[in-house]
Amino acid sequence: MNIAILGCGTVGGGVATIIREMNKELALRSNTEMVLKTIVELNPDVASERFNIPPNLFAGGGKKLTVIEAAEAIDQIITSPEIDLVVETIGGTSDFVHDICMRIVKAGKHLVTANKALLAERGCDIFEEAEKHGVKIGFEAAVCGAIPIVKTIKENFTGDKILSISGIMNGTSNYILSRMQNEGLGFENALQLAQENGYAEADPALDINGGDAGHKIILLIKLAYGIDVSMNDLAITGIENIKKEDIEFANEIDAKIKLICYAKKINGDIFATVRPMMVKNSNFLSGVNGATNAVRVNTKYSGKHILVGKGAGSSETAMSIVSDMVFIARYGEKMRNTAPQQSLNFADARQFVFPYLITFHTADLPGTTGFITTAIGSRDINIDTVSHNRHQGEKATFSVATMPCRLEQIETAIEKIKTERPGMLLSEPKVMPILY
Amino acid sequence: MNIAILGCGTVGGGVATIIREMNKELALRSNTEMVLKTIVELNPDVASERFNIPPNLFAGGGKKLTVIEAAEAIDQIITSPEIDLVVETIGGTSDFVHDICMRIVKAGKHLVTANKALLAERGCDIFEEAEKHGVKIGFEAAVCGAIPIVKTIKENFTGDKILSISGIMNGTSNYILSRMQNEGLGFENALQLAQENGYAEADPALDINGGDAGHKIILLIKLAYGIDVSMNDLAITGIENIKKEDIEFANEIDAKIKLICYAKKINGDIFATVRPMMVKNSNFLSGVNGATNAVRVNTKYSGKHILVGKGAGSSETAMSIVSDMVFIARYGEKMRNTAPQQSLNFADARQFVFPYLITFHTADLPGTTGFITTAIGSRDINIDTVSHNRHQGEKATFSVATMPCRLEQIETAIEKIKTERPGMLLSEPKVMPILY
Repeated sequence: MNIAILGCGTVGGGVATIIREMNKELALRSNTEMVLKTIVELNPDVASERFNIPPNLFAGGGKKLTVIEAAEAIDQIITSPEIDLVVETIGGTSDFVHDICMRIVKAGKHLVTANKALLAERGCDIFEEAEKHGVKIGFEAAVCGAIPIVKTIKENFTGDKILSISGIMNGTSNYILSRMQNEGLGFENALQLAQENGYAEADPALDINGGDAGHKIILLIKLAYGIDVSMNDLAITGIENIKKEDIEFANEIDAKIKLICYAKKINGDIFATVRPMMVKNSNFLSGVNGATNAVRVNTKYSGKHILVGKGAGSSETAMSIVSDMVFIARYGEKMRNTAPQQSLNFADARQFVFPYLITFHTADLPGTTGFITTAIGSRDINIDTVSHNRHQGEKATFSVATMPCRLEQIETAIEKIKTERPGMLLSEPKVMPILY
Repeated sequence: MNIAILGCGTVGGGVATIIREMNKELALRSNTEMVLKTIVELNPDVASERFNIPPNLFAGGGKKLTVIEAAEAIDQIITSPEIDLVVETIGGTSDFVHDICMRIVKAGKHLVTANKALLAERGCDIFEEAEKHGVKIGFEAAVCGAIPIVKTIKENFTGDKILSISGIMNGTSNYILSRMQNEGLGFENALQLAQENGYAEADPALDINGGDAGHKIILLIKLAYGIDVSMNDLAITGIENIKKEDIEFANEIDAKIKLICYAKKINGDIFATVRPMMVKNSNFLSGVNGATNAVRVNTKYSGKHILVGKGAGSSETAMSIVSDMVFIARYGEKMRNTAPQQSLNFADARQFVFPYLITFHTADLPGTTGFITTAIGSRDINIDTVSHNRHQGEKATFSVATMPCRLEQIETAIEKIKTERPGMLLSEPKVMPILY
């Protein structure tokens, strides 16, 4: 099996390393030799040194490439009858990358990628073309790095029905929340530490706004339930607005705040969301700290499963890519790219039933707690607990934990408070599901 | 794909249930209809009622079978050209079951089984015959019930090298140890509770003596390292001799006692053992309680992985069997039964380097601690901590935590104490590895 790698950064370089170091084992395991034919990279000098790759393995023999030269090298790979499988580790959702992936599968070559953003946002036509041309798309590395959750759902739980998936799928967010939790840091300080320690990009937007996690749950929903969900339809809230006080309110109800990807099938409806949740300490996910990823799959016949592992990293993500290559070599045309399409309804997350914790900042006046809890009750929401009220000058802060209800009910209760008592709420209340 | 089930107890009945309930999904997922043709069971009346299976699905039309009638029904299945795959859920390692499995694969039929004892103790020739006849053996259900550890090693980590496997693979033992730990019960009381609550068989020998766990680690060693290990060569210690005081000593070093299956590759050697270990609270496995199973796989490229799930149960184990059926239907001849054979040495567990905790019962006399710790030091073992000494009348009990050393060193130190101070040790010291 002749292989080309596009992009030799953290992940692409890891793939090249494993192919070279495990050559003998991979041949035994896949019944064919895995031959790394060429790597396209703008800066082969850097990559060559970082990953100890001979310069002659790079298109252009190791010299820096212009963007045009790189595009030409990629064209040659796509048109070469010699290449069987292309590893795309350029990243991003640009037309350039989308076009490359489309042309790879149209040329009858297998595609293996860690590009969750591309597959989740613009993957439909790539998957479609792959079906038409009988080629395979490996994307184990696109969801939770080293955790083999893609194959676990596609190949290992085929004798079961998946009821729900929940997980911590963004290591950067989890690192930040863990440091806020364990050291009492504010969000900005924790983010800075994440950047200093290499856990967050210079532009951490996609990690902390939930976008990266959203891409992953979209791919898992496609595999588990056979429906395509767009980023616009998915209710996503990031961790940017989590404050120390939220961590304290979580502690009060024996919970930790985690950025949770959640998808659940209820009859013909799929509910899904990415948002910070109050995860009860009795739930395994509450104890997953730092850059680790964890996925919890709840099934009809075999109950709860948990998978924990590294969500990112060079050799960690590369391992998933190389395992996909072996899987494709072993099973070729018999491998399935995704699950059979199903006609399930993607439901409005506002109809999702959870117990919720609502935090209110109010003017510190008599009657406030009474009015707010009455408004909540008027929307048929039972209250579980009301927290101790923090008085700071003329302001007060408290939280209300509800019994299971729909988010929509909470929103109308808040609307009622705003309408009937303008000025009572000093800021928009924060609403977080409580996950048992 | 036409299927026959041999034995309709807890697991076989679960398989029949899933095949019947998920018929449509299974057809979609495997590109063929899964047709349950017949079930052989001595007492179909009981099974029919328990699993709501129509009597006519049983060989004999639902009437009780004599052993001879059942054997004839099995013969018919084996010789029938109609049957493609046989699910063996009779259990045990008898010649009768071994012979049935041999004949199934020789007849060119796929075999799916949860029978860890048979495959671990007498599986070699069954695997060999399967290779010869190009049929497949699915045994996901044989290792940790619902946890898909077999496929995870065989299919998902093919781009990696497995450095070590450790896990809690026997739910009964773990249930007993958890209750001893959490409620301060003695072993006998905890065992009785396990039996009353359906977590232990009337004859719990194989669960508590480590035999069942041994079968599982033997199968994982075969998959991960490509070598066959016999039960005689595997160092196995059960939990029968764990006492309350051992739990207390564990608490003192921030650890919990767990029955651990452990296998590790060091250069060309495979070390493996099943025995109670002091698992440090910082190790994930220490927090796995009750009948849950958990496996920790440490790899070269992708680091630590953890899988947690149900280790037993009717539909839980059956799910793994049905998933194997789908895998065989999908990939047929391309599926691999095991890993390529390797020429690795199965090493003596006494050469295994761990930190150990040694518990001594001695006469309560001056100079005892000094003599014992000096004897340990004389074998080049560094001591980490010596516990507080418990004085009970004329007896004393204390424990010594060592730095990493070989078990053999500890054994010679104990030998020295016995030889030079006969009568100092009132019982055989207990030696447990400390797992970080």
